[in-house]
Amino acid sequence: MVRVMGIDPGLAIAGFAILEGDSQHMRALHYGSIETKSNLTLPCRLRQLYDAVTELIREFCPQELAVEDLFFNRNVTTAFTVGQARGVFLLAAEQQGLIYYQYTPAQVKQAVTGYGRADKPQIQQMVKVLLGLPAVPKPDDTADALAIAICHLQSSGMRQILMERGK
Amino acid sequence: MVRVMGIDPGLAIAGFAILEGDSQHMRALHYGSIETKSNLTLPCRLRQLYDAVTELIREFCPQELAVEDLFFNRNVTTAFTVGQARGVFLLAAEQQGLIYYQYTPAQVKQAVTGYGRADKPQIQQMVKVLLGLPAVPKPDDTADALAIAICHLQSSGMRQILMERGK
Repeated sequence: MVRVMGIDPGLAIAGFAILEGDSQHMRALHYGSIETKSNLTLPCRLRQLYDAVTELIREFCPQELAVEDLFFNRNVTTAFTVGQARGVFLLAAEQQGLIYYQYTPAQVKQAVTGYGRADKPQIQQMVKVLLGLPAVPKPDDTADALAIAICHLQSSGMRQILMERGK
Repeated sequence: MVRVMGIDPGLAIAGFAILEGDSQHMRALHYGSIETKSNLTLPCRLRQLYDAVTELIREFCPQELAVEDLFFNRNVTTAFTVGQARGVFLLAAEQQGLIYYQYTPAQVKQAVTGYGRADKPQIQQMVKVLLGLPAVPKPDDTADALAIAICHLQSSGMRQILMERGK
């Protein structure tokens, strides 16, 4: 059993999810979003993201971090902005000793729905079902962070099997 | 008189420069580059950048940070990678209380050479002359960081004039 933090990075809004379990049984300990206001300076917003995620890690003590891989299908300005936010999240996790894993969007979709090209509503519905949540989590950033954390726990089952076979 | 840190962010290599002075007189206190190895994990490399720049700030106590503005003319993957490095530099500077300034590439070229479309060798030559350096600073990242810091000191002269007129 592992405790993982999933992050969907962003400057204005970032989703987070802390799950515990394995590929068979998983439960959500906490999830939500961190928001920063656009009237603050960029360094101040980055510091708010950093402080918020550091506090979450200290409170919930996840051992592993799961984030989406490289940046797909968006423009350079967005990639640059999201990159800055992602940098401070990875730094905070590294400073707190979390092990870092990354997954492609297709891996996340495959793990959550069994179909690598699932659309957003399908993923969100499966997140709700798999974790037994009362409703589809909002905003999308939070649902995405939950999906990444689910993907990680599904994959950790696979990693376990591969490790045991390797013995 | 102000002490400024110029940064040219990057993951594999980042240039830094610490200058003191004003638009009329400026001198380089320290400059160089921070490098991280590609065989390390991304979070580990980000932490090395963060630790290195935090140490530089603590040693040289710059009051202000100057970096280039938004990301121009490169691809999404590069923007994403540089963004992650830039995020941790801005965070480190914010945590140490530096005031943040950003400049466009054209502003930097204009400030250093008097010509907004100057090429790299022209800029590097002017950096050498303006700071009385023994040679053109290497690598390019270091020269770029020096150029950004020069741009900031040149602009601070303009800010001073505007402030005095406003009195």
